[in-house]
Amino acid sequence: MTKNIVTAALLIIGDEILSGRTEDKNINFLAKNLTEMGISLREVRVVPDIENEIITALNEIRKKFDYVFTSGGIGPTHDDITSLSVAKAFGETLIQNQEATEILYKYYGKENVNEARLKMAFVPQSAKLLDNPVSSAPGFRIDNVFVMAGVPKIFQAMFFAAKKELIGGKKIESRELQINLTESLIAKDLTDLQNKYPEVTMGSYPFDGGTSLVFRSANVNLLEKAVNEMTHILQK
Amino acid sequence: MTKNIVTAALLIIGDEILSGRTEDKNINFLAKNLTEMGISLREVRVVPDIENEIITALNEIRKKFDYVFTSGGIGPTHDDITSLSVAKAFGETLIQNQEATEILYKYYGKENVNEARLKMAFVPQSAKLLDNPVSSAPGFRIDNVFVMAGVPKIFQAMFFAAKKELIGGKKIESRELQINLTESLIAKDLTDLQNKYPEVTMGSYPFDGGTSLVFRSANVNLLEKAVNEMTHILQK
Repeated sequence: MTKNIVTAALLIIGDEILSGRTEDKNINFLAKNLTEMGISLREVRVVPDIENEIITALNEIRKKFDYVFTSGGIGPTHDDITSLSVAKAFGETLIQNQEATEILYKYYGKENVNEARLKMAFVPQSAKLLDNPVSSAPGFRIDNVFVMAGVPKIFQAMFFAAKKELIGGKKIESRELQINLTESLIAKDLTDLQNKYPEVTMGSYPFDGGTSLVFRSANVNLLEKAVNEMTHILQK
Repeated sequence: MTKNIVTAALLIIGDEILSGRTEDKNINFLAKNLTEMGISLREVRVVPDIENEIITALNEIRKKFDYVFTSGGIGPTHDDITSLSVAKAFGETLIQNQEATEILYKYYGKENVNEARLKMAFVPQSAKLLDNPVSSAPGFRIDNVFVMAGVPKIFQAMFFAAKKELIGGKKIESRELQINLTESLIAKDLTDLQNKYPEVTMGSYPFDGGTSLVFRSANVNLLEKAVNEMTHILQK
């Protein structure tokens, strides 16, 4: 049986996002893919590459949500402190993972695995590696937390590996109506409709020249009913 | 005298970001503009359009950082609950703001200000309006919190209005070296250099075919020294 509501959060570890050097691409990718499988992304946090901040944020959200994804900070350089921070958040230490070591040997050739590269084979004791067809960076799962790379291409590959282990909930379907009215002219009707259909979440998003009305619900029947009623109202 | 470190956080109120319908554009804009004026963006949170979540997050971060910016949820529809949530976070109520009312009358014509539009004139008691040359949406400041629209064009206009009231810190300068080496080959030298220059933050970001080394510091002298040393190392 699928749980009705499955929740998730994303923790982005990234000085480069906070300084503006890099524009995040992972929030939208994860949001869309989770929504698609009936998992509701309920919070995103971006924190700097500071151990304490990572630990505090992770410990807050991993207890609050069914799944947590982290992005960034698992490479070979000194500023990659995610694995260690995650280990500490769980009260674990980093140990050299045999599987990760062999992946590195295979990827680079054993003679080319220097100290920096070998650092990537150290993951928390109870971590289980995620498949990563794109690079040798060691994404892993620990309890309900999936630790993944920040580079979008690798983040995405790791998500598809993680996906096999996720149990989705009831899918939230959505319908969108684009109208050429400013939202304040439809606001009252929308409020009345929202009150009539509490199980359908209705959002209103202005754009240049009009408004998008977004209807979302796990109950397709009610969803279609609400959309039809709004369509009818708009035709009046 | 300028404070050395001025900090800020961004609170995005947005079901549409969390569902994946809309891709965020405000994080990067704010990050770049704050960095430019010596204000360090230290945390970003995205929360759903749920009153309790907004209040809890806002009360946590407004005590932790010098400035907080919020984006989203200040329009005329039922799902726009930011102003009320912010008021509650501050233990205030919403009152009809005379200035905001007149802006609405001027923008729409008095006869066109329906109940939904008038809702936008209600802001927390101690709020001070922000200039908004783009629309009539009521951005405002309350204490160290700037409440702004989610639509990027309006968010940006409101930020430029807010900017006049911000006191920046010492600007963090940055230099970037792009090298055609994978980061693990430069990792050891970078760690040694980081240990030698603790006041310069060094980040390493892989891209296809190479690595960007980013050096950041409020001390330009040390920054240049560290960059020169790395350039020298790379020429060896």
